[in-house]
Amino acid sequence: MGLLKEINKPQDIKKYSMEQLNEIAKEIRQLILETVSVTGGHLAPSLGVVELTLALHYVYNSPQDKIVWDVGHQSYVHKILTGRREEFSTLRQYGGISGFPKREESAHDVFATGHSSTSISAALGFAQARDKLGLDYEVVAVIGDGAMTGGMAFEALNHAGHLGADLLVILNDNEMSIDQNVGAMSSYLSRLRADPMYTKRKEDIEYILKKVPAIGSTVVKAVERVKDSLKYLLVPGILFEELGFTYLGPIDGHNIPEISMVLRKAKKLKGPVLLHVITQKGRGYEPAVCNPAVFHGVAPFQLKTGCIIKNPGPSSYTSVFSEALTELAEKDQRIIAITAAMPEGTGLNSFAKKYPQRFYDVGIAEQHAVTMASAMALEGLRPVVAIYSTFLQRAYDQILHDVCLQKAPVLFAIDRGGLVGEDGPTHHGVFDYSYLRHIPGMAVLAPKDEEELRHMIYTALQYDGPVAVRYPRGAGIGVDISEDFRLLPWGKGEVLAKGDNLAILAVGSMVYPALTVKKILEYKGIRCTVVNGRFIKPLDQELIVELAQTHPCLVTMEENVIAGGFGSGVLELLTNSGINGVKVLNIGVPDQFVTHGKVDILKEAIGLTPEKIAEQIVSHFALPEQKV
Amino acid sequence: MGLLKEINKPQDIKKYSMEQLNEIAKEIRQLILETVSVTGGHLAPSLGVVELTLALHYVYNSPQDKIVWDVGHQSYVHKILTGRREEFSTLRQYGGISGFPKREESAHDVFATGHSSTSISAALGFAQARDKLGLDYEVVAVIGDGAMTGGMAFEALNHAGHLGADLLVILNDNEMSIDQNVGAMSSYLSRLRADPMYTKRKEDIEYILKKVPAIGSTVVKAVERVKDSLKYLLVPGILFEELGFTYLGPIDGHNIPEISMVLRKAKKLKGPVLLHVITQKGRGYEPAVCNPAVFHGVAPFQLKTGCIIKNPGPSSYTSVFSEALTELAEKDQRIIAITAAMPEGTGLNSFAKKYPQRFYDVGIAEQHAVTMASAMALEGLRPVVAIYSTFLQRAYDQILHDVCLQKAPVLFAIDRGGLVGEDGPTHHGVFDYSYLRHIPGMAVLAPKDEEELRHMIYTALQYDGPVAVRYPRGAGIGVDISEDFRLLPWGKGEVLAKGDNLAILAVGSMVYPALTVKKILEYKGIRCTVVNGRFIKPLDQELIVELAQTHPCLVTMEENVIAGGFGSGVLELLTNSGINGVKVLNIGVPDQFVTHGKVDILKEAIGLTPEKIAEQIVSHFALPEQKV
Ligand SMILES: [Mg+2]
Ligand SMILES: [Mg+2]
Repeated sequence: MGLLKEINKPQDIKKYSMEQLNEIAKEIRQLILETVSVTGGHLAPSLGVVELTLALHYVYNSPQDKIVWDVGHQSYVHKILTGRREEFSTLRQYGGISGFPKREESAHDVFATGHSSTSISAALGFAQARDKLGLDYEVVAVIGDGAMTGGMAFEALNHAGHLGADLLVILNDNEMSIDQNVGAMSSYLSRLRADPMYTKRKEDIEYILKKVPAIGSTVVKAVERVKDSLKYLLVPGILFEELGFTYLGPIDGHNIPEISMVLRKAKKLKGPVLLHVITQKGRGYEPAVCNPAVFHGVAPFQLKTGCIIKNPGPSSYTSVFSEALTELAEKDQRIIAITAAMPEGTGLNSFAKKYPQRFYDVGIAEQHAVTMASAMALEGLRPVVAIYSTFLQRAYDQILHDVCLQKAPVLFAIDRGGLVGEDGPTHHGVFDYSYLRHIPGMAVLAPKDEEELRHMIYTALQYDGPVAVRYPRGAGIGVDISEDFRLLPWGKGEVLAKGDNLAILAVGSMVYPALTVKKILEYKGIRCTVVNGRFIKPLDQELIVELAQTHPCLVTMEENVIAGGFGSGVLELLTNSGINGVKVLNIGVPDQFVTHGKVDILKEAIGLTPEKIAEQIVSHFALPEQKV
Repeated sequence: MGLLKEINKPQDIKKYSMEQLNEIAKEIRQLILETVSVTGGHLAPSLGVVELTLALHYVYNSPQDKIVWDVGHQSYVHKILTGRREEFSTLRQYGGISGFPKREESAHDVFATGHSSTSISAALGFAQARDKLGLDYEVVAVIGDGAMTGGMAFEALNHAGHLGADLLVILNDNEMSIDQNVGAMSSYLSRLRADPMYTKRKEDIEYILKKVPAIGSTVVKAVERVKDSLKYLLVPGILFEELGFTYLGPIDGHNIPEISMVLRKAKKLKGPVLLHVITQKGRGYEPAVCNPAVFHGVAPFQLKTGCIIKNPGPSSYTSVFSEALTELAEKDQRIIAITAAMPEGTGLNSFAKKYPQRFYDVGIAEQHAVTMASAMALEGLRPVVAIYSTFLQRAYDQILHDVCLQKAPVLFAIDRGGLVGEDGPTHHGVFDYSYLRHIPGMAVLAPKDEEELRHMIYTALQYDGPVAVRYPRGAGIGVDISEDFRLLPWGKGEVLAKGDNLAILAVGSMVYPALTVKKILEYKGIRCTVVNGRFIKPLDQELIVELAQTHPCLVTMEENVIAGGFGSGVLELLTNSGINGVKVLNIGVPDQFVTHGKVDILKEAIGLTPEKIAEQIVSHFALPEQKV
C-alpha cells in the first residue's frame, strides 16, 4: 500500500497522475481481495468498477456532487476512497461498515441502496431538488446493464428525458446482472458494443452525399432530408436518444484517462446524458473473471485459488428446494420455473440445465415475472416463481392484483426468508408474512427444516390456488431428506411436544429454537407444548383454539416482524373467535430495521435467541420459576 | 339498434360488410353513451376503441384467441360484442357486470385487469403456455400509450423481445393516459405520429444511391454499409425494433378496413409485433373529445349537454386536500406535489395551476414517483405524493426500501382509501393500513372528516419522517372547514364520547359510523365510549391501555382488511403490554375481495353498516340487551 494509504478523502486523489491512479487501482483491488476473501461480499461488481470509481472521484467533488450507486453492491471502491479505507476490514460485520451505501455511514453515501433499479429515480430527485433550491452540484447515477432491465429504471429514464433534467446516468455495462443478462435491452447493448461501424458509416454517408452530382433541386431536397435524419444512422444509442438522453460511448471502463475525459465532456453538456461504459466484472482477479456469477456475492474464499471455503454441513434450503423441484418436474410436465436474474442464487440453475425449455430468467423484473406466471397458471401450467423474500416486495401489487384476485395457482418459492445476515436491512426477508398474509386467497407455508421444505413444495404444487413457501438463507438443520414426497394436511399444524403450563406455536425457522426454549423452560419447571404451525395462512383454527383453551399462556414465534405477521394473525383468530382466557406473547422481529452482521449476533441483539426468548416468556407471563 | 341486437357472440360480426361494421360502431357508441350517462363509468377510453375492438373481433376468434385489455377500462365494447349486450345496462352495479375484464364473468375476459401496464406480461404468459402445451391460438395485448410508461410494461417488452415470442402488442395511442401524457416515450410517439417523412426518406435514399456514379469499389462498399443500416432510417418504431419487436404503423384506429388488413398482416408475422394505432379518446361524443380527462372515468351526466350531474353536497375529500395543500404551499416553499398520471383525480390540478414549477406528473410510474420523492425529501424539500390507495400498492417496496429505511420525510396523500364502489375489487383501497403499518418508521393517519383532513395534512408536513394520510373517495361529512390549520397532538387519539360498557376505537371513515353504533347500542341500554383513533401508527398506547383497563369490551373499527390492519395493531399492543382482561372485537373488511357496486350496498353485504356492526357487537360479547 504505497499511495492508497495517503487517501483519506476523495479530494486526495486529484493530485495524482494517471499512472499513479492506475497504481492506486491495483492497491484497491488488492485491498478488496484481501478483505472480501475473509469477510465474503460482493466481489466481482466492485472489482469491475475500480477505474470508473477513481475517475468519478477524480472528476467530481463528492459529497457536494452526488453519486448514486444502483443496487450499491459495487460501492466498495467508493467506500475505500471516501474515508473508510481503514474500516474496510470491518465490511459487512456487525458494528462495521455496510456492504451497501448507507447515509448514516458517510456523507458520501447520498442514497441508500440494496434493491435494484432505483438510482435514476433518486438522481432525478436530487437534480430537481437542486434546481428548486437554487443549489449547484452535479448528479450521477451509476447503474448496471442488469439493473437497467428493472421497470422503474425505465420509468425514471422516461421522466428524466421528459424533464430534460441535468444529470448523468452511467450505464455500467458488464454484460451481466448477477447471472448472464437476459432481455432485448441486453442484446441491444451488445450490438452497440460490437459495432465499430457506426463512425465508419457516418463517413460513408458524407462521402456518398458529396459524390452525388448536383443535378437540380430534387436531389438537393433529398439530400437535406437525409441529412436531417442522419442522427438515426450515426447515433449508436438511438434508443436512449429517443428517450431524450444524449448518448456517449461506448467507452472502455478500465481506462481512467478516457473515462475522465468523457466525464468532463458530460459535465459540460446540458440535459440528461447517458454514458455507456464497458467494464469487466471481476476485473483483475482471474477466478472472478471466469466465474462472475459465483463471485458476484461470495462467501469467504482462498485468495490464491479462488476456492470458496465451504462450511462442511447440511445442504442449504436453496439446494434442497432446487433438487425437489427438479425431481417433481420430471413427473409433472406442467411445472415451469421462473427466476428474476437469479438462477444461481435461487438454485434454479440445475433445473434450467435439465429443463431449459421450462425455465425462464426474466431479468431483474419481479413484477413482470409474477404477472406472466399468473397467465401461465390460468392456462394450466404450474409456474414456480423463485424470488428472495426482499425482492418479491417489488411484486406485492402483482401478487395481489394479478395472482390472488384471479386465484391463479402460482407457487412462490420465497428464499432468504428471515434475517439474511451480512447484507443487512435492505436484504432481510422479514416482512413477507405481513405483506402476504393480508391478501385474500393467499396461502403461506414455512417449513421447520429441509425435509419439510420438500413436502411443502410437493403439497403446494397440489394446491389449486396462490401459495407461498418461505424458507431461510443458508444451511438446513441436517435432517434426513431421503423420504418420499408426502402430502401435508392442508392448514394443519404439527404438535411436537406436550406440556401444560405454556403452549409455543412457532413457524418456519423458529420451530427448532422453540424446542430449545422448551428445554430451557423445563429447567425452570415450566412444561411446554410445542407446535410447528406450518401454515401462516390459513391458520389451523381448530388446533390454535384448542391450545388456547388448554393452556394458560400461549407464545407465538416467527422470524418476521411482529406487526401484521403470524402472531398477529393468531391474535385476530383468537379475538374474533371469542377466546379470551389465554394470555399471549408474540415473539418476532421488533418494529425496526435490523442492521447487518452475522445472523446469530443479530438474533442476540433483537432478542430472538432461545435464551432471550425464554427470559422474555418468564418475565412477560410472570411465571414462577422453580429449579427442577 | 338495427344490427347490434343480432350480435350475441363475436363470431356474429364476421358476416357483416365494412359499411355495416361502421353502422354497428355507431350503435355501440349510442349504447355506451346511453348506459354510462346513467351508470357513470370509463366513457372516453371505450369510445376511443370502438373500431379497434370491432376489427379485433372481426379478425381474431375470441375466446380461443386471447385478447388482454390493459387496465381494462376500455373493455366496454368488448363486453358488448361478447354476449353481454343485454346485461350492459347493469354496468358497474352490484350484481351486474363489472367495469373491467373479469374471468368469472365471461370466457372472453381472459385476464382480469384494473391496474395499469400488466397486459404484455399476461400476453407473454399466455403465449408461452400455448407453446409449452402445444396449443394453437393468437395472443393480443391492447395497451394505451399511458400504460406503456409503467415500468412493468417495459420489463415485459424487454422479455418478449428476448424470447421472440409470437404475440401482438397493440399500442393504443391516444396521446393520453388519464390526463395528458408525460414522459419522453410520449414525445417519441408524437414524433412517430407527426412524421410522414419516413417513407419519403426511404425513397430519397434509394434515389440518391442510384445517382452515385459507380467509380470504384470504395463507393460500392460504402453503399452497402449504408444499405445495411437503412432500417435505422426507415423504421419509424426503431425504439421498439431495437427491443426485438416488428413495428407496424402508425395506422388510423378508427378505420376498420385498415385495422383489419394490418391485423391480418400481423397475424402472419412470426415473433413479437407492435402495432401502433392512433385513436381519439372520447371519439364520437363531442363533450368527451373536448374534455377527455373529465370523461375518462365519469359520474352520471346529461347526455345532451355533457353536464356532469352533480350531487349537491359537501366538498370531496380530494378537493379539501387539494385546497389545503395549495394553501400550505404558499407559506412553505419546500412543498412539492407529485402525481402518477392523475392530476385531476388527486385534485393536484389546482396546485399545478398555481405552482407549475413545484408540480410533477411522472406518468403511470408509481415506483419512480416514490423513490424520486425520497431523494427530494432527503435534500430538504417536502414532497407530497398523492396516489390512490390501490395504485400505491405498486410502490410498496419503494416506500419500504427507499423512503422508510432512510427516514425520508415524504408525505403520502392516499386518496380512495376504503371501498371505492363501482370500480370494484381492483380499485378498493382496503389494504393500505396493512401494507404500511408493518413498515418500521412509517406513520399512518386517517381523518374522521374533511376538517380533520386539513389538520392532518398540516400536521404531517411538520413531521420529520415518512407519513401517510389516508382518506376516502367522494364527499366529506359536510363539516365546517373554515378553521385555521391546527397541529394535532402526535400519536394521540380523540375521545368523542364516554360510556362504561364498551369502548369503540375507530379510525378514518369509521369514526362517524362508530357514533351511530353508539346510538344504536344506547337504545339497547349499552353505554359506549367512542374514540377517534386518528393514528393507525404510532398507536396511542396510553389511551388504548386505559380504554382496555376501564372497559370490559373493546371494539376496533376500520375500513380496511382486518388482517394486519389497525385492529390487529391494537391486539398486538394489548397482548404485548400484558393487558389481558378486556374482550376485543375487530370490525373491518373480511378476508375476501369485495365486488363492485355502490359503497352502501357493499358495506351492507360485508357487515360494515352501523346496524350490522351493532348486531355483531351484541352477539360477539353476548351483551344483555335492555330497552331503555
Ligand atoms: Mg451488469
Ligand atoms: Mg392513452
